[in-house]
Amino acid sequence: MRKSNAAIKRCKTMSTLQKILGGKWKLEILYYIGVEDVHRFGALRRHLVEITESSLTKQLRELEADGFLHRHDFHEVPPHVEYTLTELGESFLSVLHYMKAWGEKNL
Amino acid sequence: MRKSNAAIKRCKTMSTLQKILGGKWKLEILYYIGVEDVHRFGALRRHLVEITESSLTKQLRELEADGFLHRHDFHEVPPHVEYTLTELGESFLSVLHYMKAWGEKNL
Repeated sequence: MRKSNAAIKRCKTMSTLQKILGGKWKLEILYYIGVEDVHRFGALRRHLVEITESSLTKQLRELEADGFLHRHDFHEVPPHVEYTLTELGESFLSVLHYMKAWGEKNL
Repeated sequence: MRKSNAAIKRCKTMSTLQKILGGKWKLEILYYIGVEDVHRFGALRRHLVEITESSLTKQLRELEADGFLHRHDFHEVPPHVEYTLTELGESFLSVLHYMKAWGEKNL
């Protein structure tokens, strides 16, 4: 039975997930940092071949603001910054693994 | 132990998933069609409050092209078109449910 329009409200959880993950590179950035242990800006950029520097910077900042990434500045010269998953980001890895397994089977 | 750069290749599955799901509304569109039984353009637009007509049209076409959605035109006047999940789209529901459960617990 279809639900009436009145009965369906915007699902807040899905809306939040969409906002966090909707970026053009978010899933892949989390995957490379969390699963493939790629922690530095330049290395991430090399993996995400088509990404621009400004786009990667923006997406990393958003993931940091959303609590998924931690940015650690070693205060070295030349600059040395590493990105790692926060506790929230680590817990999201289960979703990435589930999604990847589905993709390997179905795509 | 960190993997060397040479050892890490772009993960094709993650890259494909990113391309399919990276749109600003893809997850929510699949959720409303597949989980909340919202099948018509106007109803989808009302649920995704901020989406424009052209953006919804584009995202629906992409999801159809990627094999997740089926577009059924009833050839009626006034026009009556419904969107439903394909078999591939139905199988993706397990990922959406897993992701939503994670979000409800962690976000």
